[in-house]
Amino acid sequence: MRIPLDREGGAPLYRQIADHLRQGIVRGSLEPGLRLPATRRLAGDLGVNRITVETAYAELQAEGLVASRLGSGTYVLPPLPQTSLPSGSPAAPWPLWQQELERARPISTEVLRDEVSAGAGSPRTTGASRLTRALGVPGPAQGQGAPGSRQAAAPGSHGAALIDLASGRGDPALFPIDDFRRMLQAVLHRDGVAALDYGEHRGYAPLREVIAHILASQGLPARAENVLITAGSQQVLALVAQLLLRPGDAVIVESPTYGGALDLFRMLDLKVIGVGTDAHGLQVETLEPSLQRHHPKLIYTIPNFHNPTGSCLDGQRRRRLIELAERYNVPLLEDDFVGDLRYDGRAQPALKALDPGGRVIYASTFSKMLMPGLRVGFLLADGPVYQRLVECKRVNDLATSNLLQRALEAYVTVGRYQTHLRRACRRYRRRRDAMLQAIQRHLPRGVRLDPPLGGLFVWLRLPPGMDSGRLLAAARREGVSFAPGRRFFPGGKEGASHLRLNFAAQTEAEITEGVKRLGEAMRKDARRRTGKA
Amino acid sequence: MRIPLDREGGAPLYRQIADHLRQGIVRGSLEPGLRLPATRRLAGDLGVNRITVETAYAELQAEGLVASRLGSGTYVLPPLPQTSLPSGSPAAPWPLWQQELERARPISTEVLRDEVSAGAGSPRTTGASRLTRALGVPGPAQGQGAPGSRQAAAPGSHGAALIDLASGRGDPALFPIDDFRRMLQAVLHRDGVAALDYGEHRGYAPLREVIAHILASQGLPARAENVLITAGSQQVLALVAQLLLRPGDAVIVESPTYGGALDLFRMLDLKVIGVGTDAHGLQVETLEPSLQRHHPKLIYTIPNFHNPTGSCLDGQRRRRLIELAERYNVPLLEDDFVGDLRYDGRAQPALKALDPGGRVIYASTFSKMLMPGLRVGFLLADGPVYQRLVECKRVNDLATSNLLQRALEAYVTVGRYQTHLRRACRRYRRRRDAMLQAIQRHLPRGVRLDPPLGGLFVWLRLPPGMDSGRLLAAARREGVSFAPGRRFFPGGKEGASHLRLNFAAQTEAEITEGVKRLGEAMRKDARRRTGKA
Repeated sequence: MRIPLDREGGAPLYRQIADHLRQGIVRGSLEPGLRLPATRRLAGDLGVNRITVETAYAELQAEGLVASRLGSGTYVLPPLPQTSLPSGSPAAPWPLWQQELERARPISTEVLRDEVSAGAGSPRTTGASRLTRALGVPGPAQGQGAPGSRQAAAPGSHGAALIDLASGRGDPALFPIDDFRRMLQAVLHRDGVAALDYGEHRGYAPLREVIAHILASQGLPARAENVLITAGSQQVLALVAQLLLRPGDAVIVESPTYGGALDLFRMLDLKVIGVGTDAHGLQVETLEPSLQRHHPKLIYTIPNFHNPTGSCLDGQRRRRLIELAERYNVPLLEDDFVGDLRYDGRAQPALKALDPGGRVIYASTFSKMLMPGLRVGFLLADGPVYQRLVECKRVNDLATSNLLQRALEAYVTVGRYQTHLRRACRRYRRRRDAMLQAIQRHLPRGVRLDPPLGGLFVWLRLPPGMDSGRLLAAARREGVSFAPGRRFFPGGKEGASHLRLNFAAQTEAEITEGVKRLGEAMRKDARRRTGKA
Repeated sequence: MRIPLDREGGAPLYRQIADHLRQGIVRGSLEPGLRLPATRRLAGDLGVNRITVETAYAELQAEGLVASRLGSGTYVLPPLPQTSLPSGSPAAPWPLWQQELERARPISTEVLRDEVSAGAGSPRTTGASRLTRALGVPGPAQGQGAPGSRQAAAPGSHGAALIDLASGRGDPALFPIDDFRRMLQAVLHRDGVAALDYGEHRGYAPLREVIAHILASQGLPARAENVLITAGSQQVLALVAQLLLRPGDAVIVESPTYGGALDLFRMLDLKVIGVGTDAHGLQVETLEPSLQRHHPKLIYTIPNFHNPTGSCLDGQRRRRLIELAERYNVPLLEDDFVGDLRYDGRAQPALKALDPGGRVIYASTFSKMLMPGLRVGFLLADGPVYQRLVECKRVNDLATSNLLQRALEAYVTVGRYQTHLRRACRRYRRRRDAMLQAIQRHLPRGVRLDPPLGGLFVWLRLPPGMDSGRLLAAARREGVSFAPGRRFFPGGKEGASHLRLNFAAQTEAEITEGVKRLGEAMRKDARRRTGKA
């Protein structure tokens, strides 16, 4: 038998021999029952030590590919039917359970991609760049240049980079990166390997203390023993859903709401019931019939600077919501992802601050205020549900990275948080104002919005007949992106007349230019429709 | 109305006024329907500007606590029934849904605590210290000093620190902490905020490349596009279970198996079916009846250096296992948490390496080889299930910390991994040998074990009549801890006759002393039983 051997710097010879034979067996070129050459003979053929061949055979035997019979030699064993197919061959059929997965309705495939990867620093394949490429393919209407379209805005010819108004996060330039780097160093010096060992499931105790103090300073009394550190606020949603909900259970959400929550609930086969919203948040007045009809196991709500609408739940409604949740025995999950980013008006108390005990699970995160890539968020809960959520965290991923928790604890003090918060609010308020001004100046009159008092987003209602999905393609050709409304609605389809703009992640100049481009896309869309009509 | 105001350095006056009134309303001392003082009047009473009072009233109104009627003044609104209870009062009843949670059977409350926090650096309340305290309470048999017990080993008088042989991890002293610190710095310098922004859901592409190369170098062909980065291998288990299983579904596990998997499956209300093991791993020969009877939706297996038994699945059984999984259309989840830590014998191919395509989901982690506190693990899967798992990861926590992934990628190269692996294997081999020797010397003859060829654990079968739960209390009094068998069995009760020792996390001297103490505990236990008989 001739086996190609690389004698200079390759793998050990016995390994090369075994690899070659294994390949032959798996591919079927060495058939079951075949007797392999005697070790002495093959050693002579290959010019290697006999022990080398014996070692190779022993390896194959340990893998169950060959068997040696005493005094009779070494034989190829019958392979599995499947292993006779070349591994990775596209012709190899997936097992049945995988084929079923393939047929199953995928949960939304794009909702979070943009939220997460838009503007991400990595130049490598991100969701956003995939999406850009996918949508960059000239559409059917492209290149036909509706009469009157300006040359500078001609399809595909936009010289400037895409202005991303689709993102779901704040401005990375506010991230205190140098401070944080120093804290990482300090923590590794101070704590040594302890910083890299497992920590408490519910999170590093001093960080839980800091969080409790920050919450209290913002008007939400909290104790460290009611705080659980998670991998961002998304994980709070996942843990609560895993603990309290079973497939088929109903969950009430605002319509529209955060797409990442909708995707989670769909993944878990829940029945998602949307309740309408207006400029003052969830229409709590219309909630009761849904509670009576659907017997939901959870109400998920974003009372402050809602995603995507930017609205803030009215104080009366807050109290009524807690009252209804109590009467119908439904847990409330309060997602306060940007509750502190307030630019106007008065602070509303968190639902959790109105909770007489154990009615509300409060979720928040450092992702929007500090650094999304840390993946550190937290929940606040009291009553038996707290310990169950800790267990849930434990079976999901044991604990959140100890090192990052310690560095965050070293960095975040109440004072520093307040300073950072003030700076962020100042900057974002200006940007919000720039966006509102640009909208008034550059968008068609039929566009409607409620100016947000805080948060990251402006939510637009389009003029009749305009579809945000179709508009997105046109807007990208103009060099601007946004989050189309569809992804925020439980039904998916209601969102055609809406879109979400992020004003926090871009400079005022970019915002103005981006809205201008959006206006251009809208006018082209209107002209095309008028032209067709 | 008299309201105490702190005029020097306290909160703004309007805030203090609002806080005081709010407290009165919530506590019920200001009753519904009560008319608050006119703003002019209260301003005069308190010696503040009238606008200050108006601002305070406006804040309460925004919170829904009061309402102002034009020309008639400001009135206290009816509070919720619950808010009349002092917040946080222990007398406040939990809502019904919480009371039900309280009654529900908790999942095991200790299985992972020890695995995770034993030896953790934080001196603050960790699971281990709680457990130590819980078990440190003198038991009923204590202090009676069985005749012949040596003074040095008398209950409670052990001067030396507890030797922890219960841990589930490797030796923290091997963690390359200085290298890693440098890499963190380098990455933050190189990538700036990109390192702290969201990344790809499935993980940082260059890290996935490195992982694919390491797997290939260890004999498992892999491509980066089939790798998904997770928060440790525990999250792989959680994602796979969430995707493929629904409450009531059956899952097959080895009996015994990893306690963290059992807890996860219990949390998800799965039917856990244990199949027996022997010195060569899962008894695949006895698997088929379980497949026929229970129609499991998943087989979870640890083929290499099993937790807790240390056994390695035989090559023939590996192929038979894949064949059966194929025939009965059951996905295989291969947990290879320490597959590379081999001290003797030949490497078995991973089940995944024998997979003709899409049959096996492979899970591994950097927690045991490098640093547990990083919480970075990964899975390898092909076919439609891969993309579904990525979606599952996304709805659970968006992505694993970008910064840590980048630092890990900068640190881990194939060459460095191999070097680190060799060093770990050398050290752990010596420790295993020290433990086996100490067991032979210091433990009673009736103790049985199969010497492990790799991994972290030795699994002991106790002499008839000895109970590992009872023994643990005695052992702790002698100054040594171990993982009792009960936590590794699906049924929970079968484990009384077994215990698990970790030989990787302690020095040879500590191992020898620890086993000696364990022997002393066993002898005392035997004498007590004999004395009673």
